[in-house]
Amino acid sequence: MTDHNRLTELATRRGFYFPTAGAYGGVAGFYTYGPQGAALKRNLESAWRERFVTREGHMEVDGPTIMPEPVFEASGHLDGFDDTMIECSECETSHRADHLVEDETGIEDAESLGTERIGELVATHEIACPNCGALLVDAPVSEFNLMFGTNIGPGSSAPGYLRPETAQAIFVEFGRLAEYARNQLPFGVGQIGKAYRNEISPRRGIVRVREFTQAELELFVSPETSEPDLASVADVSLTLYPIDEQRSEGREYVEKTVSEAVEEGTIESPWIAYYLGIATEWYERIGVDTDRFRYRQHLPGERAHYAVDCWDAEAELGGNWIEVSGFSTRGNYDLSRHAERSGGSMTVFEPYDEPRTIERPAVDPDMSYLGPEFGDRAPAVVEALEERAAREPEAFDGEEIEIEIDGETHAIPVAVTGFDVIEETIAGENVTPHVIEPSFGVDRVFATVFEHAFRRDTVEGEERTYLELPPELAPTFAGVFPLMDRDGMGERAREITAALRERGFAVEYDDSGSIGRRYRRQDEIGTPVCLTVDYETVEGNGSVTLRDRDSAAQIRVPMSADGLGELGAVLSDTWTRTRSHAASSTFRVCSFRCRICSASCPGANWAGCWSP
Amino acid sequence: MTDHNRLTELATRRGFYFPTAGAYGGVAGFYTYGPQGAALKRNLESAWRERFVTREGHMEVDGPTIMPEPVFEASGHLDGFDDTMIECSECETSHRADHLVEDETGIEDAESLGTERIGELVATHEIACPNCGALLVDAPVSEFNLMFGTNIGPGSSAPGYLRPETAQAIFVEFGRLAEYARNQLPFGVGQIGKAYRNEISPRRGIVRVREFTQAELELFVSPETSEPDLASVADVSLTLYPIDEQRSEGREYVEKTVSEAVEEGTIESPWIAYYLGIATEWYERIGVDTDRFRYRQHLPGERAHYAVDCWDAEAELGGNWIEVSGFSTRGNYDLSRHAERSGGSMTVFEPYDEPRTIERPAVDPDMSYLGPEFGDRAPAVVEALEERAAREPEAFDGEEIEIEIDGETHAIPVAVTGFDVIEETIAGENVTPHVIEPSFGVDRVFATVFEHAFRRDTVEGEERTYLELPPELAPTFAGVFPLMDRDGMGERAREITAALRERGFAVEYDDSGSIGRRYRRQDEIGTPVCLTVDYETVEGNGSVTLRDRDSAAQIRVPMSADGLGELGAVLSDTWTRTRSHAASSTFRVCSFRCRICSASCPGANWAGCWSP
Repeated sequence: MTDHNRLTELATRRGFYFPTAGAYGGVAGFYTYGPQGAALKRNLESAWRERFVTREGHMEVDGPTIMPEPVFEASGHLDGFDDTMIECSECETSHRADHLVEDETGIEDAESLGTERIGELVATHEIACPNCGALLVDAPVSEFNLMFGTNIGPGSSAPGYLRPETAQAIFVEFGRLAEYARNQLPFGVGQIGKAYRNEISPRRGIVRVREFTQAELELFVSPETSEPDLASVADVSLTLYPIDEQRSEGREYVEKTVSEAVEEGTIESPWIAYYLGIATEWYERIGVDTDRFRYRQHLPGERAHYAVDCWDAEAELGGNWIEVSGFSTRGNYDLSRHAERSGGSMTVFEPYDEPRTIERPAVDPDMSYLGPEFGDRAPAVVEALEERAAREPEAFDGEEIEIEIDGETHAIPVAVTGFDVIEETIAGENVTPHVIEPSFGVDRVFATVFEHAFRRDTVEGEERTYLELPPELAPTFAGVFPLMDRDGMGERAREITAALRERGFAVEYDDSGSIGRRYRRQDEIGTPVCLTVDYETVEGNGSVTLRDRDSAAQIRVPMSADGLGELGAVLSDTWTRTRSHAASSTFRVCSFRCRICSASCPGANWAGCWSP
Repeated sequence: MTDHNRLTELATRRGFYFPTAGAYGGVAGFYTYGPQGAALKRNLESAWRERFVTREGHMEVDGPTIMPEPVFEASGHLDGFDDTMIECSECETSHRADHLVEDETGIEDAESLGTERIGELVATHEIACPNCGALLVDAPVSEFNLMFGTNIGPGSSAPGYLRPETAQAIFVEFGRLAEYARNQLPFGVGQIGKAYRNEISPRRGIVRVREFTQAELELFVSPETSEPDLASVADVSLTLYPIDEQRSEGREYVEKTVSEAVEEGTIESPWIAYYLGIATEWYERIGVDTDRFRYRQHLPGERAHYAVDCWDAEAELGGNWIEVSGFSTRGNYDLSRHAERSGGSMTVFEPYDEPRTIERPAVDPDMSYLGPEFGDRAPAVVEALEERAAREPEAFDGEEIEIEIDGETHAIPVAVTGFDVIEETIAGENVTPHVIEPSFGVDRVFATVFEHAFRRDTVEGEERTYLELPPELAPTFAGVFPLMDRDGMGERAREITAALRERGFAVEYDDSGSIGRRYRRQDEIGTPVCLTVDYETVEGNGSVTLRDRDSAAQIRVPMSADGLGELGAVLSDTWTRTRSHAASSTFRVCSFRCRICSASCPGANWAGCWSP
């Protein structure tokens, strides 16, 4: 069994995730997160929020998943959010036509070829239905829109769709959000929530599903004046896979720091470089294996309809490279479209540092001349003069100016045009912000963390598997075991369990089977520490055994007779540090040291820390 | 302007919530939580999780919002989840027919009357369309199913629905969840997530919406042996409004402790009483005004199709009583239905304390007699004998026994029936658990907390409004202000902001307008503390001013020159306590004391706490 298969089995057996409604035969593309998985996913979301929203001082919103049709007309999803589908006329199953062509012909990015060409390729390559084996020669190839549709209210007069990305719920509220930001660019708005794509052929477990969770940040920047704080991530090293390397023979990755990547033009947008920097630190913090991780630049044909430039974070999972987040420059596409379709304003007034004086050529025609001369064509003449003044002011230098109205040329005395160059003082201008979007697929990040944390080793001659999850992500923080449920040990262990739960810790009490077996159960779900209540606890000095997940090392920790004593304080402290520390000082209870800031960290020496 | 209207204005202006897609004219029944609202809602969800899941040692899952049709055929929602609708033939708007009848006739619970009777009442009372005023006499009254429908995958062969309650995503996975709980009852499974009801006429802001968030706990209990820990909430006082009081002249509330309510039979199910106890403590902790709060027992006609008994927590909002959570005994309805429809097992094997020996009458007929005698009717004879042995074993006491097959009576010698009473040892039995369900409407709890926290007073001669939110719920934890953005004060304030954000605090930096105006801004969104950096900070001893939201009192807090010093430690400590403390020890930074456990709390004297 491969590690990948072991993980799928573990996911179901221990409650990380499993296909939904298995009792009814399931339904492709929908998964349920079990108790361990739901907690891990939630902890991931908190870690994302902490880094990409709270720490950056951004806002976060929570919009509905159903939105009305006009929103998606404007966003382009109603027309452009399609996959190419082929339906077998024998067995009536539908397939992604471009994927079939790619698999059979070795063509890359078949999606961009169009339905007609794909149909030809299916025929010439005699591609068969993967389900029943019938030839697909005459099967129709069509575009299938990936949005789930529904009707809002009674009747069918108000169609709505489940949002295909959380982003639109932010864009449509831009006016209000800009007010909350007091109309100052740049400002960022994050959202973590469900999004939906009605995939033709869902596959690969939680990696390609029909209902998923996104964590998206929309950063609204001034295209002229906004700049990221590049200095804060200048030295972060990035594994880059730019377009030209993808097209080269060597296909090699390029290792560059953020500042090198910007200076050398590998990454065009400093904003994208900034986010690759903080994302890299974040991915390390949550335990992603940097040797199985890269940033790949989108090839031009791959980009979404809105994207100007895009880099994907990709992780290696079960031998495949999977997109786990995307970093796009969306330009002002979305805001412009929503402004156009809704008629609402999607701009921010940007004041200049100093008011600017500009010279503006303008006309102020004498209508007592133009009226009698041109009659009802006079307004057209005025318009032509205004246009000419703005475009070619030097044309007004002579005595007369020639303009064309409906194909006829007229000479007009410059004197009656009231031409002049006016000085105007301007305080600023209305700007449609550009959007920088770091977009994370939470389920895919989950899959990566889960697989990259998977370890196998041998403890006391026995093979074990464990998840080396950072404590801040671990679904269960501690296991509490009585040596046996007798002589007061069970009671004391239940007291400790209750006391820890009251402090907000997720704790599992377990009194079933040998202690070794109970350790293995917690190891499998990545629980960082286990406490064991034994005879020493109830009859001796009250201390408990504390056992570390990764090293399997054990020490005794003193407790007060009437409560948690030192244990509670130290665990709380650990937990708080784990939760609130920055990525740069990830504190690992399991390795007994703060990896970065060990000098100031009371956990520098575990033994010293645990005994007062 | 009433406080209720002030709040609606505040909600939009300061980013708590607002109707979605206003730029497109909006769409009834959908709201977006703005930056402050999304944070408050998330903090509420965490507080719920802490109390109803983590502390109780329950599991939490995260299932999909779209589920396939068979799930809702089994749950009863496809047939029974309807509202009564009437459509005006003039203006084509749809209305809740039962609500129109209730408003016009004073009839209560018109929903239970049926469409025909409602149609008659509309006609006889000459009810007009609330939209255009046309008489609705001949308008058809129909049942409208409230689920949002969609199609899963291409084509229409796989209908799906957006779940009308989160609960079904738990019930369908019962088999697996029971395994995770090692098949031991009772066990609880919680879920916080979106649910959907395609309301005919959404109204009242976020109180009756089409997309909303539920926090539901499904507790699976053995109907025979499971018992709640009533002692832990025995003395909690409940404001009850039972059925007989609702039907009486006086219509009075009954104040009882949990133990009284159970002993005196006011609440039949001890489980419901237990959850009303912990819910009461929880509602107090999150700042709900207990004088505007009650538990109302459902009248028999009101109960959902699955409910056996139900009590609603109701809060007074803007003069109306609104259901904010429901506590139902669902019996084994859901599990039985899913077992029946899916064919899967939805039982738990419950071992007896001691194996039991039972006597079972049984037959073992002699087929060499019955075969020749009855031919192809022999199996029917065997079946009749088996049935008779189980029902009336004494019938086998004589020489012959008479049985009836297809209306004919036959006498059969008892000797050939092989009748005997067998002793069997049974270790336990398969039980379909019963379900106890505390179900919270997160948006409604939000609306209650928001409205009940609203305060107006006068500070320094100026009227102000503020939200007295518990710090654990406050969307923004601290405001940080430089007196002015000059002489290093802005820089120092930004340093402190960054340092606090790095520790996970949601902090707003504000340098615009007078300090008083900045305090008001934070007061309006319920920020517990504000820090001001002034000349004393940058030129004197480094201390900052710390100002409390509720009392508007100010003290100076010492800081170290190179960081947050005491401030960070004390705020972190406060925050941790706020977040992790139990309801019984709600720590309020703003009132300088731990309200319950003041003896052990370092915040007992704020001044003493802040200066080392």
